[in-house]
Amino acid sequence: MSRIRIGIVGFGNIGRGVLSAVNAAPDMDAKGVFTRRDPASLEIGESPVAAYHIGQAERMIDGIDVMLLCGSSADDIEDHGPHFASMFNIVDSYDTHAKIPQYLASVDAVAKNTTAIISTGWDPGLFSILRVISTSVLPDGASYTFWGSGVSQGHSAAIRGIEGVKDAVQYTIPINEAVDAVRSGSMPKLDAQSMHQRVCYVVAEPGADKAKIEKSIKTMPHYFADYHTFVNFIDDYSFISEHSGMPHGGKELRTGKTGGKGQHTHSIEFSLDLDSNPEFTGSVMTAYARAAFRMSREGLFGAKTVFDVPLSYISVMDRATLIKELL
Amino acid sequence: MSRIRIGIVGFGNIGRGVLSAVNAAPDMDAKGVFTRRDPASLEIGESPVAAYHIGQAERMIDGIDVMLLCGSSADDIEDHGPHFASMFNIVDSYDTHAKIPQYLASVDAVAKNTTAIISTGWDPGLFSILRVISTSVLPDGASYTFWGSGVSQGHSAAIRGIEGVKDAVQYTIPINEAVDAVRSGSMPKLDAQSMHQRVCYVVAEPGADKAKIEKSIKTMPHYFADYHTFVNFIDDYSFISEHSGMPHGGKELRTGKTGGKGQHTHSIEFSLDLDSNPEFTGSVMTAYARAAFRMSREGLFGAKTVFDVPLSYISVMDRATLIKELL
Repeated sequence: MSRIRIGIVGFGNIGRGVLSAVNAAPDMDAKGVFTRRDPASLEIGESPVAAYHIGQAERMIDGIDVMLLCGSSADDIEDHGPHFASMFNIVDSYDTHAKIPQYLASVDAVAKNTTAIISTGWDPGLFSILRVISTSVLPDGASYTFWGSGVSQGHSAAIRGIEGVKDAVQYTIPINEAVDAVRSGSMPKLDAQSMHQRVCYVVAEPGADKAKIEKSIKTMPHYFADYHTFVNFIDDYSFISEHSGMPHGGKELRTGKTGGKGQHTHSIEFSLDLDSNPEFTGSVMTAYARAAFRMSREGLFGAKTVFDVPLSYISVMDRATLIKELL
Repeated sequence: MSRIRIGIVGFGNIGRGVLSAVNAAPDMDAKGVFTRRDPASLEIGESPVAAYHIGQAERMIDGIDVMLLCGSSADDIEDHGPHFASMFNIVDSYDTHAKIPQYLASVDAVAKNTTAIISTGWDPGLFSILRVISTSVLPDGASYTFWGSGVSQGHSAAIRGIEGVKDAVQYTIPINEAVDAVRSGSMPKLDAQSMHQRVCYVVAEPGADKAKIEKSIKTMPHYFADYHTFVNFIDDYSFISEHSGMPHGGKELRTGKTGGKGQHTHSIEFSLDLDSNPEFTGSVMTAYARAAFRMSREGLFGAKTVFDVPLSYISVMDRATLIKELL
């Protein structure tokens, strides 16, 4: 099978994660990074990949098999998806859950001769796969998604928007008692606040009113007001040395009953513990790039999700080896 | 969509688990249980399902959409698979790992107009799915499968074969230190003995030499000799009241590195905790019966594995609902 030629649109954290994953894949080559910035300004490191302005992409239709869209879901992907899917096979990690159906439709409308696998990554993505498996196998049950421990970019940004805040990071942390209650099989009713707490590390501007900052955080609607929120003020050095990583993870759990009278309880748990959220997300996208390439070769065009892709398509192993080694 | 008409071949523990899962499925009806025994002797309970002799099955090709093969992998399925797949869509939980490729080929050779999904269940089955996902997403890593805590039928039977043993059950139990070492990301080298211990509960015949039984167990090649094995003698009452369930479970783990220089470690963990191994296995088979039915309608004939089935096919939800609710 010929090597898969990958293009990367957007070179933030996820774009860098994708490049690292593509470089590690034995069957892929990174052929170009596409950016809105001056291509000469990108720090690509030692990777043998060229940087181009995003506007040059359409001239490279013959040189790239799959474009991986690594912009932001809020600002970029809704435009990039339909734009690139009209020309290239694409994979993205679009994660605005509520808008996925309309985004899927917008991509499907143009992906007439291309394969577009949307909303890969881990949630949506791997967690979604687990939700389908666990609800299908245990229809009489209850499902729970815990996020963290990990950095929430949205909540961190919300804190940084407060007057007097120089820098901030927010960790979403599952509440152990809630996890234990779920594992017990008691199928508790839990809302987001009873499942997660929010721990903030904040660097204040010199002379800022810390009490006021703390109050602004803890009373912020939607983001913090409904949660147990803890605010820690730290200095620049601690912030950089201890809080510049992007760890994340989470757990997807379902407990359910079988046996006619529901006499037997089962629990299914899937958990991720990630040192680098963007590198792991990029690794999932890269595996699905392999699927997009193979599906397009078979004429399976249109917008797809992780629910539509047979898992053999994401593995570098051929089917016979997969069956022999991993089944 | 029309309701799926299910046949069940073999009515041991897994067959009963399948019947219970089919009765709980909103889109399926159990149409018949097929047995080598006298059909009138089957205790089917309150389920409105007819019992037939296994030889009557081929006269019911028009009345059954999917046959679920619930015999034993060692004694039945290798014959039942090709026999029934020539006439019906089938699903099984064939679990003799080393012989899966040749079994697959034997089924594929006859499944010209039927869909045959083999080796579903949880291992092979759900654990296999996790192995493909985790090795594809984290190619630079190490995978580990822990079984238990749970009853091993094979090891229990081996003990019951020893002179002086009236009844026995063997629990395979993961060694916590090994699980912790894996979770730490250190990618330890572990063999089966360092991952699992074996705990046996034995009812001895009156007057039997318990010391001799214990020695026979602990020195039994392959089954026990290489493991930390614990033998407990108990009475009939304790055996029946405390050890007649069939719990099982296990963990499929992978840790891997990303980031070019492998500077970031990630861990993926999937775990099952099952009150009833056969009911859960039957529930997985039933979900894949839905997939076999749908794939056959689309002309996707031949022998398939869980790697070949898009996950949307196992869910009772339609694709749009799946995308809206679970992606």
